[in-house]
Amino acid sequence: MPILNKDMTLCISLAARPSNIGTRFHNYLYEQLGLNFVYKAFAPTDIVAAVAGIRGLPIRGAAVSMPYKEDVIALVDRMDPSAAAISSVNTIVNDDGVLTAYNTDYLAIARLLRDHAVQADYSVLLRGSGGMAKAVAAALRDAGFSAVSIVARNERTGRALADLYGFGWQPEVGSATADLIINVTPLGMRGSLAGNEENVQSFDDAAVSAARVVFDVVALPSETPLICAARSAGKRVIAGAEVIAIQAEEQFVLYTGVRPSPEQVRAAAEFSRA
Amino acid sequence: MPILNKDMTLCISLAARPSNIGTRFHNYLYEQLGLNFVYKAFAPTDIVAAVAGIRGLPIRGAAVSMPYKEDVIALVDRMDPSAAAISSVNTIVNDDGVLTAYNTDYLAIARLLRDHAVQADYSVLLRGSGGMAKAVAAALRDAGFSAVSIVARNERTGRALADLYGFGWQPEVGSATADLIINVTPLGMRGSLAGNEENVQSFDDAAVSAARVVFDVVALPSETPLICAARSAGKRVIAGAEVIAIQAEEQFVLYTGVRPSPEQVRAAAEFSRA
Repeated sequence: MPILNKDMTLCISLAARPSNIGTRFHNYLYEQLGLNFVYKAFAPTDIVAAVAGIRGLPIRGAAVSMPYKEDVIALVDRMDPSAAAISSVNTIVNDDGVLTAYNTDYLAIARLLRDHAVQADYSVLLRGSGGMAKAVAAALRDAGFSAVSIVARNERTGRALADLYGFGWQPEVGSATADLIINVTPLGMRGSLAGNEENVQSFDDAAVSAARVVFDVVALPSETPLICAARSAGKRVIAGAEVIAIQAEEQFVLYTGVRPSPEQVRAAAEFSRA
Repeated sequence: MPILNKDMTLCISLAARPSNIGTRFHNYLYEQLGLNFVYKAFAPTDIVAAVAGIRGLPIRGAAVSMPYKEDVIALVDRMDPSAAAISSVNTIVNDDGVLTAYNTDYLAIARLLRDHAVQADYSVLLRGSGGMAKAVAAALRDAGFSAVSIVARNERTGRALADLYGFGWQPEVGSATADLIINVTPLGMRGSLAGNEENVQSFDDAAVSAARVVFDVVALPSETPLICAARSAGKRVIAGAEVIAIQAEEQFVLYTGVRPSPEQVRAAAEFSRA
């Protein structure tokens, strides 16, 4: 076992309920790339003191998860546009005591839209109105999309999100179709967070059939009922595992200054979910 | 390589110039004993914020080195007698947000005096008047030693230390002898901290010859000219490496609640210095 040494750089995560995914993703790549870094997850007891610790120890970077994504805005020195666009932080980078906040979910979605050649003139149905839906909506707006409808049963949050970016709102999918359909609700998610929504297909077969690109942000499982239906129908697909992997890759680059190869990211993502 | 996981407990060190010794000692024992702990050294940029981080992240324990041993007194919740006796902290333990400060140098010296059967009626020459000399003097006083003379060229610090514990003071060893002679100065130390004091024997051959027990706190090298002379003269010897290893063992027990075997401590100490 290669024992830790005093010169290692520490990166961390701050989450009420840490998962092992980030810890495994980052430590795997540190080892593969021979970087003298180590990554450790924390469930902070005091977020203000924890961010003070990032500054004072110092710690190089921190992933920020629920419920701290907005709390930390007041604690950093600079907001990168990716975080400012959605008033939500998922990454803090410490440059010699100056803390800059990023949102790599936003960066990952913007990059996936480019990499999958999703054209800005596509019509879009975006289902959801939570924090991640905001990241998707902002990335769509900033990429020049305009024919976007937010689908959310909750009129207050749905209309607020739509108004923020100049998009439309509708309470249900109904018989609507679009070139790009995106699920950003827990529908199709596995496990305790999903409640009764496990195995639910978030857009019906007709909507899938009419779409050119199907995008599901749900990552556990990444092969949701929606993604499975889209693959069966031969559609271009963007799955939640890609979002998770790319947002982690962007964090990795921000922390280390090193961009791993696509093969290394794939292997790290696979390792992190094993 | 066993990759880190989210449930690991972090212990750290806080020092202006971290060495690798603590990092290697603790991580070696964590692995040997199968404990889900990890140890990382820090050179803090802000000690107040760093201690906030111990509380807020949270971190289980921290070794405290120069120049923070007194600064942290105001930042903890409780002073263990070992730290209170000398107003100097080298260990912080975090029990559910309550920070208790210890001094395991004091604990190590007290234990070494017992383990080596040094009797309280021995006369003592203690050379030095810095922080570690204070830990030795306090341990001597608390173990019942009374015939102790502090040897220090600096009259102010030497007299202050002597007065604090009811001991005598003298500026030079001169022709004095004692049952127990203790070096707590850099005399005989190797490297950049020692200046011209490398290879200097801190008590002369006559003092060694007259002593029953020879104790040198210098740990780099542990086989100082004094210790070598004492071994040649067939004296009972307490060397600096023992102090380092036992103070680290006591930290280890405070952090983990697990006491390693003497063999494990020896192996970890050897590994830490390799």
